[in-house]
Amino acid sequence: MLLLRRCSSLTRLCSINSHRHPVTPALASCAVRFFSSDREEQFRWSRRWTHAVAGLLAGSGAVLAYALKQHKAEKADAITGQSAATLPSSSLPIFSQEEVSRHRSLEDGVWVTYKGGVYDITEFVAMHPGGDKIMMAAGGSVEPFWALYAVHNQEHVLEMLSEYKASHLRAEDQRKQQSLNPSDPFSSDPERHPVLRINNLKPFNAETPPEILTESYITPSVLFFKRNHLPVPNVDPATYKLQIEINGPANSERGGGALSLSLDDLKNKFPKHTVTAVVQCAGNRRSDMHKAKPVKGLNWGIGAIGNATWSGAKLRDVLQAAGYSLDDSKWARHVQFEGLDQDVGGTTYGASIPLRKAISEDGDCLLAYEMNGEVLPADHGFPIRVIVPGTVGARNVKWLGKIIVSAEESNSHWQQNDYKGFSPSTDWDTVDYKSAPAIQELPIQSAITVPADGAVVDRSEEEVTVKGYAWSGGGREVVRVDVSIDGGNTWKIAQLKGSNDGGDGGTAPPPGQAWAWKLWELTVPLPEDTEKMEIVCKAVDSSYNMQPDTIMPIWNLRGVLSNAWHKVNVRIQGEEEDQ
Amino acid sequence: MLLLRRCSSLTRLCSINSHRHPVTPALASCAVRFFSSDREEQFRWSRRWTHAVAGLLAGSGAVLAYALKQHKAEKADAITGQSAATLPSSSLPIFSQEEVSRHRSLEDGVWVTYKGGVYDITEFVAMHPGGDKIMMAAGGSVEPFWALYAVHNQEHVLEMLSEYKASHLRAEDQRKQQSLNPSDPFSSDPERHPVLRINNLKPFNAETPPEILTESYITPSVLFFKRNHLPVPNVDPATYKLQIEINGPANSERGGGALSLSLDDLKNKFPKHTVTAVVQCAGNRRSDMHKAKPVKGLNWGIGAIGNATWSGAKLRDVLQAAGYSLDDSKWARHVQFEGLDQDVGGTTYGASIPLRKAISEDGDCLLAYEMNGEVLPADHGFPIRVIVPGTVGARNVKWLGKIIVSAEESNSHWQQNDYKGFSPSTDWDTVDYKSAPAIQELPIQSAITVPADGAVVDRSEEEVTVKGYAWSGGGREVVRVDVSIDGGNTWKIAQLKGSNDGGDGGTAPPPGQAWAWKLWELTVPLPEDTEKMEIVCKAVDSSYNMQPDTIMPIWNLRGVLSNAWHKVNVRIQGEEEDQ
Repeated sequence: MLLLRRCSSLTRLCSINSHRHPVTPALASCAVRFFSSDREEQFRWSRRWTHAVAGLLAGSGAVLAYALKQHKAEKADAITGQSAATLPSSSLPIFSQEEVSRHRSLEDGVWVTYKGGVYDITEFVAMHPGGDKIMMAAGGSVEPFWALYAVHNQEHVLEMLSEYKASHLRAEDQRKQQSLNPSDPFSSDPERHPVLRINNLKPFNAETPPEILTESYITPSVLFFKRNHLPVPNVDPATYKLQIEINGPANSERGGGALSLSLDDLKNKFPKHTVTAVVQCAGNRRSDMHKAKPVKGLNWGIGAIGNATWSGAKLRDVLQAAGYSLDDSKWARHVQFEGLDQDVGGTTYGASIPLRKAISEDGDCLLAYEMNGEVLPADHGFPIRVIVPGTVGARNVKWLGKIIVSAEESNSHWQQNDYKGFSPSTDWDTVDYKSAPAIQELPIQSAITVPADGAVVDRSEEEVTVKGYAWSGGGREVVRVDVSIDGGNTWKIAQLKGSNDGGDGGTAPPPGQAWAWKLWELTVPLPEDTEKMEIVCKAVDSSYNMQPDTIMPIWNLRGVLSNAWHKVNVRIQGEEEDQ
Repeated sequence: MLLLRRCSSLTRLCSINSHRHPVTPALASCAVRFFSSDREEQFRWSRRWTHAVAGLLAGSGAVLAYALKQHKAEKADAITGQSAATLPSSSLPIFSQEEVSRHRSLEDGVWVTYKGGVYDITEFVAMHPGGDKIMMAAGGSVEPFWALYAVHNQEHVLEMLSEYKASHLRAEDQRKQQSLNPSDPFSSDPERHPVLRINNLKPFNAETPPEILTESYITPSVLFFKRNHLPVPNVDPATYKLQIEINGPANSERGGGALSLSLDDLKNKFPKHTVTAVVQCAGNRRSDMHKAKPVKGLNWGIGAIGNATWSGAKLRDVLQAAGYSLDDSKWARHVQFEGLDQDVGGTTYGASIPLRKAISEDGDCLLAYEMNGEVLPADHGFPIRVIVPGTVGARNVKWLGKIIVSAEESNSHWQQNDYKGFSPSTDWDTVDYKSAPAIQELPIQSAITVPADGAVVDRSEEEVTVKGYAWSGGGREVVRVDVSIDGGNTWKIAQLKGSNDGGDGGTAPPPGQAWAWKLWELTVPLPEDTEKMEIVCKAVDSSYNMQPDTIMPIWNLRGVLSNAWHKVNVRIQGEEEDQ
């Protein structure tokens, strides 16, 4: 009965949209097969149906409202038996996050959380106007997705969800604090959203699925890639202190400036600045390099990058408050950062940046206490992370404990013996880490997020929309993205969406301060003479730097700086193929 | 007799060096052939001999001195007939530069000038320990070459030259001033050294021969490429005035600052600063792009680039003297430059740079009145040229007449409708100059100067030395150059010679202020399994930007920004080939 009703609802949805997209015979045959097959087959078909419907809806708010109204009317007279939704709210059971996480499929049930409530939305999955994207939230919170897809900002949506309330989330999980297990240094790591693609659990390293990256100009914090080198430290904001030292020559009058600031000091004693900036891991797209020839490192796809707003005190202001003056530029060359995260031996994460970047008015370095307008999440460095716009993620030190103005670079492992680029001819027998500079500004980069590699496009769609991101380090603005669907033989220019054209409603950044990315998009007709497309993108920055064509000439043993043209292979199926 | 003596001298040279490089049978057979052939054949053989001898000498000052002494002894008892060298100096004839320029071959005689004297060195050509490089000075002055090759800084050399004195150079040519021909706007253009490779005569555009580029870290001014857009203006330094305007909003209190400075003001009222900086034309290496697919523009090889020291007042200081203050950054965005060079309609050359670059402490923009420690030459902008380090040559405006701080870019043709990069898909029917940013900072670049494309290497040499330059815009230091002799399949790391390792004896530049180039060199064994080498170079800058692999994906209709891997094809001949 429920399935029948679901289908009649879908049929109605199709019919109201039929003036825009005629329902194809394929959709009718799909309906027949749906009722004649087993549960798994039904699920597969229901996914295809909802995909088709989602396509028809094409993001129309009015249609979504209609769908929800229909569903409520149907649900009111549904025979559903004993259901959590029929219980008074106060009598709902309490479930742990762990239990919620087990419900990520139609077979096991699809549970999500929203503001402390647990919702069993198994029934709704096939009804979801946005198709099976809803499955990305399974076992976790829907909130980051609702933030991504603005169509959910309607009263109906929340009403709708409330009908599926099954239980409450355990209070301690709501506070996202687990009891500490002293035998596992990672036991106090925060909860993460299950949609993240995990490369490594301890320390936690996980990236954003590609198709999510280009859904919004600002990457939601929960979905932002995490790259931890060590366990997440449990910092008490009430007792937190940031130490600042100006380590001049021992015999200098100026050597020895020092300052200690509380979190409140940082928030109240310095003007609050906000920048929109990309953070990208040096290993982003390492998997492309690894495919060409094995490298050592986490096998990142294209999602070890994100674009967020960061707010906090200017590093420059804090250094000046600690006594830094122009005189210090005679001996000072670097600003070192030490994290509060440490290994079992007590070694903390560390990095440094050139002094010039740290003190420059235009450098926009921040001691950030907010990400995307909210308190900096634990995985992103709570309470303070230094944001070094235009510079590799590894220097944007999280859980910042100490800042040292110095004549020397940080002597940490990550500054001296990692995060450096080498020639393709350098191997583990010949590598001399002293011979290469530490990565700071990153080179020009771009990648295709949609379609996915290996995707199949139906020829009846007649065209394909290619989406992606592009960014360059050092504040160099992306000025053009070229896209090819024939492996790089011919190119078309993609449409850029940046901060100055609707990306976040702001104005164009001054030259040299373009810290945010550009999303881009291009719709092209499907080629008629082939069943295969090799889609390629390459970006150009304001210094007219281009991406290298191929991987092998930039191959390096650590697999960093993987910024050759990005390629995805797509197959066209349908009509012409069948002939 | 002379030939015989020459050969005996060479034999002696060979024998004194035989402990280092045994004289090969090939050299002996060369001697036999020398005496048995006609004059042209002799010349060809003498060139090979002197090449061989130059190789043996390998730059040894002691050996050069020995060679000159031998030569003088021989010359003293030579029967040379009537010779200019035997005339008293006062009775020497007077020749014009035009007449001197006609003597550039052994057939017509080889004449050179040195400090107002004309020297017929035809006889000496085959004796020259540096091989046939001496022919590059033919018809012009030897002075820039002597500056290049420090081995000439010996008393013997000048003594030697004096024996060949044939005449005086006409006084007006010594002053390098021709009478003005009012029908030709280019008639007052200065004299140029004949070694420059001319792309266009009027306006004058000529580049440095590749092999000269890497002979010295500092490119001599006379040999530095010239890229003029219009006739060279004849500026009287006594009456010269530089106008500076600060064109704020009409209703602003600060709009309307203005200053007029004489050359003496610029020299005396502001501290003198010196920077070593590359100037590179946006069209450097256009010929590579043109070969791939025709483009419009001067067909530059790899020599439209040079590295010089520039001295003058800081642009920043002068702008502040004209009343520029931080308040102006609210409206000001660009600093425009107008040249004194103009077309027949009175339109002057113009360009602009971002305000940030102009006023930045670290931007190092100069109003230069000296190049390489001497008065700025006419072809390089006498009396004042703005030097914008790290930025395309086109913005380094010569013969500077006016500076305007403005909210707008220069509206000159060269800023708005030229010197911009486009996609390979953009052609002359579709180009929209408004859609691309004006080129400012240039991307990473490198090129091979030695061996030349098409060169033949003898297998008996066993190894080949590859030389070149590398540079990147925006102050990004070149950190590595990779060289391949197999078309890019495998790579070796070249040795860099920069300002911090003997290039000019200075120290490493601060991050972001690497304005000078790096010369590089690599000696590799000749491959045994092939007769052909495709030698390739690619450079990496401090932001780890790399050069694109191939030309076509960066092809653009104006042929600018040609920075794909540089390649030269070299043939190996000898032994293995003969088998």
